[in-house]
Amino acid sequence: MTANTLHPRGVFCAAATPLTADNAPDHRPFVAHAGRLIAEGCDGVALLGTTGEANSFSLAQRKALLEATVEAGVAPGKLMPGTGVAAISETIDLTRHALSLGVTTVVMLPPFYYKGVTDDGLFAAYAEVIERVGDARLRVVLYHIPQVSGVPIPHGLIERLRARYPETVTGIKDSSGDLANHVAMIDRFPGFAVLTGADPLLLTLLPKGGAGCITATSNVCAADLAFIFRNAADPARAEAVAAAQARVVAARERTVGPRQMASIKALLADATGDAGWLRLCPPLTALSAEERRALLGA
Amino acid sequence: MTANTLHPRGVFCAAATPLTADNAPDHRPFVAHAGRLIAEGCDGVALLGTTGEANSFSLAQRKALLEATVEAGVAPGKLMPGTGVAAISETIDLTRHALSLGVTTVVMLPPFYYKGVTDDGLFAAYAEVIERVGDARLRVVLYHIPQVSGVPIPHGLIERLRARYPETVTGIKDSSGDLANHVAMIDRFPGFAVLTGADPLLLTLLPKGGAGCITATSNVCAADLAFIFRNAADPARAEAVAAAQARVVAARERTVGPRQMASIKALLADATGDAGWLRLCPPLTALSAEERRALLGA
Repeated sequence: MTANTLHPRGVFCAAATPLTADNAPDHRPFVAHAGRLIAEGCDGVALLGTTGEANSFSLAQRKALLEATVEAGVAPGKLMPGTGVAAISETIDLTRHALSLGVTTVVMLPPFYYKGVTDDGLFAAYAEVIERVGDARLRVVLYHIPQVSGVPIPHGLIERLRARYPETVTGIKDSSGDLANHVAMIDRFPGFAVLTGADPLLLTLLPKGGAGCITATSNVCAADLAFIFRNAADPARAEAVAAAQARVVAARERTVGPRQMASIKALLADATGDAGWLRLCPPLTALSAEERRALLGA
Repeated sequence: MTANTLHPRGVFCAAATPLTADNAPDHRPFVAHAGRLIAEGCDGVALLGTTGEANSFSLAQRKALLEATVEAGVAPGKLMPGTGVAAISETIDLTRHALSLGVTTVVMLPPFYYKGVTDDGLFAAYAEVIERVGDARLRVVLYHIPQVSGVPIPHGLIERLRARYPETVTGIKDSSGDLANHVAMIDRFPGFAVLTGADPLLLTLLPKGGAGCITATSNVCAADLAFIFRNAADPARAEAVAAAQARVVAARERTVGPRQMASIKALLADATGDAGWLRLCPPLTALSAEERRALLGA
């Protein structure tokens, strides 16, 4: 099993979502952003995730954004939407909808309302989704982001899912920031695609067998991450890779923290001149004018 | 301001939801259960909450259960559904739907996907819901259950909501189990209905000005809680109140913990003879046969 057979593999942007004045996803600037990300070298766009504020949108809004993106000509194979919500029947609905558009790889949160649930319960939840969706094309990327979801993905659960659904449960997005957890999964589950949610870890993870990254910062530094991914193993380009890594680390330090989404959106508003990027759905809030000046001046 | 003007006031059951074989709410036995709870003395039924597994149901399933309950003849004024979900537009949808059925008091979780959000963000979320629903009949009970939602309701937020929407934001369900938090809210917010989510605290809370309770254990001990609520201040009935309190404490101790919903449903299956009560939506799981025997033998 070589790294090349992992799925998904590469640099994926956890795309932010521009909003209309009534806080609905704004399709036109989103599609433009997705196109830019792919042009900058992203292997795909992981839309409708945590950075994309998907859980602040209605099911209808989520579906409409995915449809608009496919209709605008972004290849379905480049799209990796989040479809995991608190209610299994709605996770099934969103996953079937993605498949109906030819989008076969999804990032799936565990049901995240109840905390402290058992591995048996989480296995039953994922199994029910996979079996009721019942589509052999489906590829599921599990989503470990315990600091937000409150529901970690334990290794024992991955083992059971990989044993039962080896063709379907092909990877995990690990947004814990815990490198040891990434490496432990790579070592324990051969052929399982471990993608980091923390941009600076990409460079460390690749030689250990990591599959790539799905990150928020890539909204503003996609080209550098793509360069790192493609050239990390090339000694002749070590200097350029180190420079790209330094820019990635700087971009992340500029934005990470409790206002991460607001900061990334402020940078996108600045880059595109489109003020629609400044809006966030409550309970997230936009940067104040002063915070924006501090960010942009930095 | 006397306790009698608080709204809501009394004993409300955080009703469990029986499920069909495909894990959808089963209307007929639910309506029967609601009727029993009211017959046993509940002032109302807080359906579609944490105990009711509402966040494991689709929006359509939630609406259908509320409609079936009203259509079956349960007075809308006795119903207090949960309507707060992660997406504000869906919280608005569910709240409007309740109002369309004449159900005016709802229990509203804050948007619960993102953690560590600001008071400004939570205020904006509740304000957007209240203003976009735009119905003077609406009464909102805030829902503080940080160990599940991950999003506490800080006192500063209550102060701002009470100042801006004094007729609408009339109470809180405090499921923290922290008596000091209950008392601090009673003291700080005159006229604000503080209802405990922990049955044993009802007796302590009433003389301090508490408005009542919304609890899971009342699924199996409603008559005792109703008796405590109506007689706690009557010295002539102190002995009978103490006996009822002892039974409530025992019922709670029998069921509370990580398997609380499963245990309550097992007791309801036993009491009604309807095995549909044994089912839970993943990620929650039913008790094993052995766990059931231990519970029922206890």
